[in-house]
Amino acid sequence: MSKLLIVGTVAFDAIETPFGKTDKILGGAATYIGLSASKFGIKSGVVSVVGGDFPKSNLEMLQKNNIDTSGIEIKKEGKTFFWSGKYHNDLNLRDTLITELNVLADFNPIVPKAFIDAEFLMLGNLHPAVQMAVIKQMTKRPKLVALDTMNFWMDNTLDELLEVIKKVDVITINDEEARQLSGEYSLVKAAQKIHQMGPKYVVIKKGEHGALIFDSGNVFFAPALPLEEVFDPTGAGDTFAGGFMGYLTKTQNLSFNNMKNAVIYGSNLASFCVEKFGTQKMEVLTQSEIQKRLVQFKDLTQFDIQLD
Amino acid sequence: MSKLLIVGTVAFDAIETPFGKTDKILGGAATYIGLSASKFGIKSGVVSVVGGDFPKSNLEMLQKNNIDTSGIEIKKEGKTFFWSGKYHNDLNLRDTLITELNVLADFNPIVPKAFIDAEFLMLGNLHPAVQMAVIKQMTKRPKLVALDTMNFWMDNTLDELLEVIKKVDVITINDEEARQLSGEYSLVKAAQKIHQMGPKYVVIKKGEHGALIFDSGNVFFAPALPLEEVFDPTGAGDTFAGGFMGYLTKTQNLSFNNMKNAVIYGSNLASFCVEKFGTQKMEVLTQSEIQKRLVQFKDLTQFDIQLD
Repeated sequence: MSKLLIVGTVAFDAIETPFGKTDKILGGAATYIGLSASKFGIKSGVVSVVGGDFPKSNLEMLQKNNIDTSGIEIKKEGKTFFWSGKYHNDLNLRDTLITELNVLADFNPIVPKAFIDAEFLMLGNLHPAVQMAVIKQMTKRPKLVALDTMNFWMDNTLDELLEVIKKVDVITINDEEARQLSGEYSLVKAAQKIHQMGPKYVVIKKGEHGALIFDSGNVFFAPALPLEEVFDPTGAGDTFAGGFMGYLTKTQNLSFNNMKNAVIYGSNLASFCVEKFGTQKMEVLTQSEIQKRLVQFKDLTQFDIQLD
Repeated sequence: MSKLLIVGTVAFDAIETPFGKTDKILGGAATYIGLSASKFGIKSGVVSVVGGDFPKSNLEMLQKNNIDTSGIEIKKEGKTFFWSGKYHNDLNLRDTLITELNVLADFNPIVPKAFIDAEFLMLGNLHPAVQMAVIKQMTKRPKLVALDTMNFWMDNTLDELLEVIKKVDVITINDEEARQLSGEYSLVKAAQKIHQMGPKYVVIKKGEHGALIFDSGNVFFAPALPLEEVFDPTGAGDTFAGGFMGYLTKTQNLSFNNMKNAVIYGSNLASFCVEKFGTQKMEVLTQSEIQKRLVQFKDLTQFDIQLD
C-alpha cells in the first residue's frame, strides 16, 4: 500500500464567523489534510511540531484516524502555533487577528524512517525552507509531490518559494495567489505561467466558487457544493488538498481523468469541513455520508447533451 | 414550431474595459437575447423601442438572424437608449458612467399579432410595469415565462417587481441580487425564498464563476468556461438567458434534465459573447463553433467515479 507523508502545521485556532465564535480549538493545515486523507483508508504520517500545551487527546484522535504522529515533535518548553481570525459575511474574506508562531519559529522537520520512502508527499502551507528540508530527506523521489502555499511566502520569501515550486508536481493556491505568482489576471494564462515554473498540475482553489485543475493541455472544474449553511471555512482548502492527495494515494493513478476524480473528492470532503467549527465534522464523517454526497455532486454537474 | 417572444432594450453602449474602449455600438438586452436564441433556428420576435438615430443596418442584421423586428417601435423624433460603463480589472465589477433613457422613458410595449400566442416569453431587464404590460397582452398563458431583472428595480419599484415575479416561471438574477431580493446570504436559502415568491426555477448568474439553477428539489451548476481572454462582459448575462430560452423553445421539454442542458447552452453562448466587444462575436458565431465548445464543457465538467 502506498504511503502519504504530510508536512504542515498542527495548531490552535480561535475563529469568529458571522454564525459564532470559538475558544482555542484544534487546527492546522496538517491536521485537516490528515483527517481528510484518512477517509481513503491509506497509511499517512504527519511531520509537524507542537508545544507542551498540546493535549495528548488530540494526538490520540489523529492516531485513531490511522494517522502516524511519530513525526510530530513535542517541544515541552514551547507553546503550540496559534492563529486567530475573523470571517466577513462573504466568507471568502477574513482578517487575521493573531498569529503566534511559537514552536513553529525554529521548526526543523524530521521525517520518520517509516516515511522517508513515501510515494506521495503533501507539503502543507509553511515556510518554503521547511518544505525544501522535507523534500531533501526523502530517499527516493516520490511519485507525486504537492505543495500548498500562500501570498505571505510570495511577499516575503519568493526566491526560496520558487526553488521549492521547481521541485513539485502539483501546486494548490487560491485565485488571487495564482494571479500574484504569475502576474496574469486570467487564470488560464496564470496556470500556463505557473506550469513553466515547474508544476505539471496547477490547482486553483476559489472557495465557494469551486476549484480548477490544469495540466498543460486540459482543464477540469469542480464546483463547491451549494450549502444552506457554511459555518466555518477554516481548513476547507487543506481538507480539499487532503481529499485530493488521499484519493491519489489510494488509487495510485496519475491520469488526468483520475485527477478529475481526485478534485471532486477534494471538493466533496471540503463541503463537510465547513459545516461545523474546526475539525468537528471531519472527526466523525462516515464513508456513507461521503458516498451520498458524491451522488449530489453528480446531480449538480453531470448532463447529457448529444452532440450533433 | 414554437415561438419565442423577447422584450427588452435595443440600445447603444459605449464600453471601456482594461483591454480597450468603444464608441457607441449596438447593445441592449433584447439584442443579445435575440442573437443568442437565434442560434437554435427558432422563430423569435423582439418588442422594444429605438429612436430616429438607430441605423437601419442594425435592424437588418437582426432580421438576417431570423429575428422578427416588427415589434421594435421606431420613434423618429426620439433618441435611442444609451448606456456607458467602465469595467474594473475584476470584470465582475463595473461603474455606470452614463445612462440616457431617451425613448425608453415612456416605452409602451406593443406585442405584434404574430407573437401574442408565443409559447415562450423572455422578459428582459426593464421596468417591471413594461414586463407586466407584455404578460397581459398574451392571449394564452405561455408554456414558460422567464424574467430578468436587476438591483435597480428592487431599490426603486419593488412592489411592482414582486407583482411580475409572481407571474413568471423562471427568474434570472445575479448572486448579489438574489441575496438582496431574499434577504438571505446563502444562495440555497435565497433560492428557497424566491421560489415562494412565484418562480418555480431560480437561475443565479455568477459571472466568471458560472451559474446555478434551482427548482424546489434540484440544483445544477454550469461553470463559465475558463478563457485566456475575457474582452468585454457586456451582454454575457443576456446572452446566457437567450441561450437558455432558445434551447428550451427549440426542444419544448421542461424536465429538469433538459433545464440542465439549457443552462449549459446558456453558459456556452455567453463564453463566446465575452470574447469580443459588443455583439461582434455573436453576429458571426457558427454552429460548428458552438458544438466544439460543447465538447470543451464536457471535458471541463464530466467525471466518472464509480460509487461503492
